[in-house]
Amino acid sequence: MLKRRATILGATGSVGQTTLALIDAANKARDAEIEVVALTANSKVDELAEAAKASGAKFAAIANPHAGEELAARLVGTGIKSGAGKEAVLEAAAMDADWVMAAIVGAAGIEPLLVAAERGANIAFANKECLVCAGDAVLAAMERGGGKLLPVDSEHNAIFQVYDFERPHRIRRLILTASGGPFREREPDTLRGITPAEAVKHPNWSMGAKISVDSATMMNKGLERIEAAYLFPTPKEKIEIVVHPQSVIHSLVDYVDGSVLAQLGTPDMTIPVASALAWPDRVATPAEQLDLVKVGHMDFFPADERRFPALRLARESLDEGGLSTCILNAANEVAVAAFLKGHLPFLDIAGVTEHCLNHVRPNQDGPDLEAVLATDKLARERAWERVEELAQRG
Amino acid sequence: MLKRRATILGATGSVGQTTLALIDAANKARDAEIEVVALTANSKVDELAEAAKASGAKFAAIANPHAGEELAARLVGTGIKSGAGKEAVLEAAAMDADWVMAAIVGAAGIEPLLVAAERGANIAFANKECLVCAGDAVLAAMERGGGKLLPVDSEHNAIFQVYDFERPHRIRRLILTASGGPFREREPDTLRGITPAEAVKHPNWSMGAKISVDSATMMNKGLERIEAAYLFPTPKEKIEIVVHPQSVIHSLVDYVDGSVLAQLGTPDMTIPVASALAWPDRVATPAEQLDLVKVGHMDFFPADERRFPALRLARESLDEGGLSTCILNAANEVAVAAFLKGHLPFLDIAGVTEHCLNHVRPNQDGPDLEAVLATDKLARERAWERVEELAQRG
Repeated sequence: MLKRRATILGATGSVGQTTLALIDAANKARDAEIEVVALTANSKVDELAEAAKASGAKFAAIANPHAGEELAARLVGTGIKSGAGKEAVLEAAAMDADWVMAAIVGAAGIEPLLVAAERGANIAFANKECLVCAGDAVLAAMERGGGKLLPVDSEHNAIFQVYDFERPHRIRRLILTASGGPFREREPDTLRGITPAEAVKHPNWSMGAKISVDSATMMNKGLERIEAAYLFPTPKEKIEIVVHPQSVIHSLVDYVDGSVLAQLGTPDMTIPVASALAWPDRVATPAEQLDLVKVGHMDFFPADERRFPALRLARESLDEGGLSTCILNAANEVAVAAFLKGHLPFLDIAGVTEHCLNHVRPNQDGPDLEAVLATDKLARERAWERVEELAQRG
Repeated sequence: MLKRRATILGATGSVGQTTLALIDAANKARDAEIEVVALTANSKVDELAEAAKASGAKFAAIANPHAGEELAARLVGTGIKSGAGKEAVLEAAAMDADWVMAAIVGAAGIEPLLVAAERGANIAFANKECLVCAGDAVLAAMERGGGKLLPVDSEHNAIFQVYDFERPHRIRRLILTASGGPFREREPDTLRGITPAEAVKHPNWSMGAKISVDSATMMNKGLERIEAAYLFPTPKEKIEIVVHPQSVIHSLVDYVDGSVLAQLGTPDMTIPVASALAWPDRVATPAEQLDLVKVGHMDFFPADERRFPALRLARESLDEGGLSTCILNAANEVAVAAFLKGHLPFLDIAGVTEHCLNHVRPNQDGPDLEAVLATDKLARERAWERVEELAQRG
């Protein structure tokens, strides 16, 4: 029987809600005994209170420091404790759950993840920025705590499922698959006038605007390469990217004997969330069953760094190491935000990022969180300046 | 360090030679310490003697009872012991190797496999007939001995690599891929005049004549379904077949969470042989590395039991159970032999097999080897009679 004491950091987002639904279904099917310890949310008080009541959580924390009273009011009479502000979120992460879903979006997710990591929880994480920005700090905390990092990103979850952690020296390559985004087949010179509305139409996955743009520039895959380099003890030069528009094969591991192991599935985030929840066991999901005949065919193309300069930037920043990937991520976030607001042409997203990689010099070095947050701030400021410069030039 | 004491039953065939080459390469690369205990062959004295000398085997056995003196003469002065006849082959199987490659073709392979199974060796097996004809006897012997069956057939090896034997209840389906053979796209009524030369041209794998015809009729996939039903504790109704002409995905396992795990590779038997040799570790092979971009695309089609009646016959005989699959295999072997000699039209191969399934009634029942061999004989006799009847009718 699958037993867990689970905490969900970011319980009202898409991954958090999926996790809660899977826990509820597995408990109801008597296929698992999963107790919910703590839930957190950024600002959605109603949804957080509902989720806490429905799951029988012990503690609910809202990051918005002004929402504490409202949350407490919604939980009157339930016996569920609550808190507000950053400290309350960290308190939730510190509670004794043996399994933590780290699904807080952006840099705000790093510190709670570190708290849970230090105390030895297994950590499912759905926020690639945590590793891209603060990979060294996260790995050091996991190492000290002794828990396991369980990736929820579908590509890394795929690799995780077929990666022999006992014999990483028998692995020759990791192959990340990429949909190639909506502009894979367009000539680069037709992309100048791309609008935000065009860029956020992802062919396979239903996603938020930021990640959809990252998919269109393929920065998403570049960030995933960095994430993979932190997650798996395979040399970063051995991570390849292949464009596979149907996104049925989620990624692959090539072993020295020529066996290439892969995870496939329908494009449904429920599957990797369930895998991370139940690992090394499994729980049932409502995800549509993969029907290869219905899929019909799968295609594979090279990932072209000239067409998608974000891929090159991500690879180079990974090679550079240190805080480069933090700069990459911060600058890209700003550039994408500027594009979505209509302040930056699509093709200049990579340019802003490259500019920051070339010009931002971190004041501090080392893997600690303080250096990461300072560099993140510096890179964001430089990125906005660059957006401004480009806008003035017209 | 990978350590084995290995015996190869059927050392001069293609799988045996591949195994010896892998052992030699792994030892020379100091990646393994694999000692060769015994080698056997059917009739190729020269090749057996050479293999025994090259590998430093302790014992060499030739099945041909008249070849004993010649073999002994070739091994004079080497210190390698030798023997001839069926008893010598069984003696080889009985020696204390902890890993045995059972690569003897046909029914002759069953008894040596059982001897090695009873004494607890891990057994790599490349002879699907052993399970199709004598699956119950083989599983019972493995159970008593406590060793592990390591499938070498590429499809079953693929499933083996991604099958969670600790949690078979979390597996929803096994999906065997099939190339569909050379006649996949031809209208059934154009197949009447197919010649043996046309039938043995397999699109992806270089194989012997018999298995090539089995691939063209898809009986090969039917036999593999039966093999899979014995090998894996998944209900036989949960084994599906999908036509995948490129044979890049070798087979798949569908888990309850929607994760479908698969093994892929170039079509090179070295890969599954190496997997079975090194399991749960790995050894390097000279197999060409899989290049998905070079593969370009993969297709998937339903496996059509009306176009390929052998698929239906195999499924029905598996449902029937008992000695039905033994009858299926024997009758099919005879029908294919008759076809290859020009005595039976291609489209009547399945007809002869179906006739025998309907008319052969085993004299004995039960899973023991005696009943299997008697039924095998009976079915072969009936099949030849049927070939004769059809030939006389013209």
